[in-house]
Amino acid sequence: MMKVLITGGAGYIGSHTLLQLLEDNYQAVVLDNLSNSSEESLKRVKQLSGKSFEFIKGDICDKPLLEQIFNQHKIDAVIHFAGLKAVGESVQKPLTYYRNNVMGSVILFEAMADAQVKNLVFSSSATVYGDPVALPLNEQMPEGKPTNPYGQSKLMIENILKDLYLSDPSWNITLLRYFNPVGAHSSGRIGEDPTGIPNNLMPFVAQVATGKRKELSVFGDDYDTPDGTGVRDYIHVEDLAAGHVKAIKNMTPGNGLKTYNLGTGNGYSVLDMVKAFEQASGKTVAYKICPRRDGDVAACYADPSLAAKDLNWRAEKGISEMCEDTWRWQSQNPDGYKA
Amino acid sequence: MMKVLITGGAGYIGSHTLLQLLEDNYQAVVLDNLSNSSEESLKRVKQLSGKSFEFIKGDICDKPLLEQIFNQHKIDAVIHFAGLKAVGESVQKPLTYYRNNVMGSVILFEAMADAQVKNLVFSSSATVYGDPVALPLNEQMPEGKPTNPYGQSKLMIENILKDLYLSDPSWNITLLRYFNPVGAHSSGRIGEDPTGIPNNLMPFVAQVATGKRKELSVFGDDYDTPDGTGVRDYIHVEDLAAGHVKAIKNMTPGNGLKTYNLGTGNGYSVLDMVKAFEQASGKTVAYKICPRRDGDVAACYADPSLAAKDLNWRAEKGISEMCEDTWRWQSQNPDGYKA
Repeated sequence: MMKVLITGGAGYIGSHTLLQLLEDNYQAVVLDNLSNSSEESLKRVKQLSGKSFEFIKGDICDKPLLEQIFNQHKIDAVIHFAGLKAVGESVQKPLTYYRNNVMGSVILFEAMADAQVKNLVFSSSATVYGDPVALPLNEQMPEGKPTNPYGQSKLMIENILKDLYLSDPSWNITLLRYFNPVGAHSSGRIGEDPTGIPNNLMPFVAQVATGKRKELSVFGDDYDTPDGTGVRDYIHVEDLAAGHVKAIKNMTPGNGLKTYNLGTGNGYSVLDMVKAFEQASGKTVAYKICPRRDGDVAACYADPSLAAKDLNWRAEKGISEMCEDTWRWQSQNPDGYKA
Repeated sequence: MMKVLITGGAGYIGSHTLLQLLEDNYQAVVLDNLSNSSEESLKRVKQLSGKSFEFIKGDICDKPLLEQIFNQHKIDAVIHFAGLKAVGESVQKPLTYYRNNVMGSVILFEAMADAQVKNLVFSSSATVYGDPVALPLNEQMPEGKPTNPYGQSKLMIENILKDLYLSDPSWNITLLRYFNPVGAHSSGRIGEDPTGIPNNLMPFVAQVATGKRKELSVFGDDYDTPDGTGVRDYIHVEDLAAGHVKAIKNMTPGNGLKTYNLGTGNGYSVLDMVKAFEQASGKTVAYKICPRRDGDVAACYADPSLAAKDLNWRAEKGISEMCEDTWRWQSQNPDGYKA
């Protein structure tokens, strides 16, 4: 069976993808520096799957380590999740983001090229579209100007991979552009475990519901959307993980460079999500309206039809499952993996 | 007097800038890995200037070396030339370009930040405009989509520097967008010494004139230009070097991030340059018309008025001096620095 190297495999999306790969009988090697994740997630993936895999604690910037991994394992494909992802932090510390995300990726791709491992799934983001030219967003639309270094770093890596593919068409590269991942594994055993104050809506909402945070700040209620709050395409992390497995399955020789949106195609507002979460949890989520944030767009949602056509993948879980699974994870693990 | 670290100081533009800085009594430290340049250029700069400076053979990707340099020297400003620059090669070896140009720059900027050296002049290129939206190009026009990894790497570094400046406005950063550097020092002692087959027009023309190459390939004679061949804004390397000295002089605290075109504002066609070179050298330059190359634009020239206004800099040397100085360098050094 294929052996997949998963960088950042201990993280939120990485751990859910790892679990599905193991359940589908793939062999896996995980590389993670644990800078923003916990080895506990890997222990739980082992319990849930009943399968084993190798874990290497290390950094994608460590070229000799990468060489060693590719020498010791017959890796067939790499799923590259490793990277920093906090938009606000990226504005404060851009060089840290360009080092970890862009430099780290260049080093990883060099090591892959040296080892003749040329099958790659890359964890990109809908942020590469910048301010949407039209909705829903499809993959033929031009990339925009991401408004922060996190988004820039994703676009740079996409551009590097396009140049790499042009220079050597024997690579198979799939760029997966995530919309807004939420939810957790239905067992409540693995989920999103942000360090400090959550940057994303759902973990924040969940922490308000458990009483860990006082109230949610809603940034802007005067957008041109049905209720005035920002509209996003939230996608369940289990659906997202399934998209990666489908991308790996589809990676036959000559597949080339492909780009897919991974979203549901449905837009929900901040207040839609708050209401759905209140219903799923039976808790009240206090919120206050704050001014808009720089760089936020009114609405953003995917046209996911290309992934449906090529990968036979569709998001299957709706807003209630997203909230129920987030709540199960958050209420059973109020301090994340540190409990 | 200010001490300036010059990365890539042994290269074509680096060595001419180094000479002018020394003549203007700046102290200089040169860092160059000599991957695409010769220490002989530095010997000649010493002879021409009668001044000394420290040369460190090393790479901008070597963080401990950079830390050591910033510890040992009180560097006031950095002029960052180091990088690979062959468009065609960049298409063949994109990762090599992203490593040397983008990764190397991130490592340099980190070392500067750590050492609290926050004055930087960066060697950018008019290629960041992509296909011109209008001519002449001014700095308010949007960046385009560079058609090759070399150009991409320059745009990525500009974007990284913009994010760095936003995160810490105590940086002073000047982005100099070069048009088409040609010519050589009027002494004929330093000049452009390309490895192998020249990528740029003028060194190729000069090598045809000396008999080293059989004939020039002119890529396209059916562009919408006066004679059908591509039009570019050629700028004498001594003018370009003077622009760097002016940028350093202008770098007072609070200067912020500035972007300047360095060009003459005049566009000359390939055949204009061939004729001017024949006149300057008294030699015939054989050429043949070939198909257009992918990614070449019909015409590209600068509006250089912003640099005139802010830096009090103007290109002073015309097409005949460009050709005469190129010819003096080429005829006196037919094998470049290897003679």
